[in-house]
Amino acid sequence: MTKKPATRKAGTNGEPKSALTRARILDATAHVLSRKGYAGTRLTDVAAQAEIQAPAIYYYYPSREDLIEEVMWSGITRMLEHVQQVLDELPADTAPMDRIDAAVEAHLRYELGISDYTTAAIRNAGQLPDELRLRYDHETRKYGELWRKLFEDARSSGALRGDLEPTVARMLVMGALSWAAEWWNPRRESLDTVIKTAQSLVRNGLAEPPAAEGDTVRPSAPSRRRRKTSESPA
Amino acid sequence: MTKKPATRKAGTNGEPKSALTRARILDATAHVLSRKGYAGTRLTDVAAQAEIQAPAIYYYYPSREDLIEEVMWSGITRMLEHVQQVLDELPADTAPMDRIDAAVEAHLRYELGISDYTTAAIRNAGQLPDELRLRYDHETRKYGELWRKLFEDARSSGALRGDLEPTVARMLVMGALSWAAEWWNPRRESLDTVIKTAQSLVRNGLAEPPAAEGDTVRPSAPSRRRRKTSESPA
Repeated sequence: MTKKPATRKAGTNGEPKSALTRARILDATAHVLSRKGYAGTRLTDVAAQAEIQAPAIYYYYPSREDLIEEVMWSGITRMLEHVQQVLDELPADTAPMDRIDAAVEAHLRYELGISDYTTAAIRNAGQLPDELRLRYDHETRKYGELWRKLFEDARSSGALRGDLEPTVARMLVMGALSWAAEWWNPRRESLDTVIKTAQSLVRNGLAEPPAAEGDTVRPSAPSRRRRKTSESPA
Repeated sequence: MTKKPATRKAGTNGEPKSALTRARILDATAHVLSRKGYAGTRLTDVAAQAEIQAPAIYYYYPSREDLIEEVMWSGITRMLEHVQQVLDELPADTAPMDRIDAAVEAHLRYELGISDYTTAAIRNAGQLPDELRLRYDHETRKYGELWRKLFEDARSSGALRGDLEPTVARMLVMGALSWAAEWWNPRRESLDTVIKTAQSLVRNGLAEPPAAEGDTVRPSAPSRRRRKTSESPA
């Protein structure tokens, strides 16, 4: 993948130049870190990517390690804030499965817009020294907690099928969504197509099947299992 | 994760000692590569992990790059062979969705048994020099082709829901499965639990819902859409 990150321009929306330069350095680090890895990320490459002089980086970050640490946690922190905000804006009586639907869309829209941060985290989380992982691990746990609560609400309302182990189901869904940053090619399929297919796969993958016409809807029967379909051979 | 790879012992099952040493070096490289990354993988660390002298590595591999290249492609090659064998052993009239079920189980059992190779590939595929990626990319395409065919058979038999874009659905499923090597903790849930939940999530996520009692089964109607369920709020 050779997606080039959007170049930030100073002064276009009233932000002070220093904040924009800081953001550009961070974007450039995410780009280099996702492609070169923790051990291979050099500040000269970051500076070239950000189109600044290498020593200028030290005006904003005391060390290479501080910069890498911030790339790792800031992507997941901003993702958490974005998904939480989308959920907070839903009507209070939104059904649990519709909340998961909204979270799937919010996650994918945000992730695929900042994909360098996501791929940097995917590829490097297992390779960082422990001291650089503390805040990343903390933010990852907070984001996992948001999804754990979404799944728990679905389970306790009877919307989650009883044959699913909730933690495993949640990790499989989060894996499917996170991995999209590794394969999505906007020239092959639109972001809307990715979101619609992911929402359908997740909803149908998790939910009790809808009651047949004339059946009574029984949302409070979480242990009701769906029979395996027996398709005719192709 | 701190899973220690199984140590191979020479002479336990009739393999010549040199083949076992070669395999131990490869296992050790997968272990180090997944944790240190491409730029950070040193042969001294590989030798320590394999419990051999570093110069002995050159008896089996001409360079560090050859060793890393083989770790990258051999995991996916063996996965492909294993999943293909499981599919080949199914009865000829096995329904497409049951074949996907079998592939989900075969993938997870193999991947979680050689998880160092999977995490080494996940974390480093985007960070390797192009010349070290050629065979890995080739093997990855072949494995993707196996799954593409499984999905195509399901779609053409009407077993796949019409609202799913097949390529996107396939990549989401493969992402969910691959990512399991990053989070699975055998002390938290059994491999069988992971497999059962993954199979249920994938089958229900992809399949036409089963016809209600008394309905006629219509496997040849791929565009029949499932209505959204309207759960009562929690």
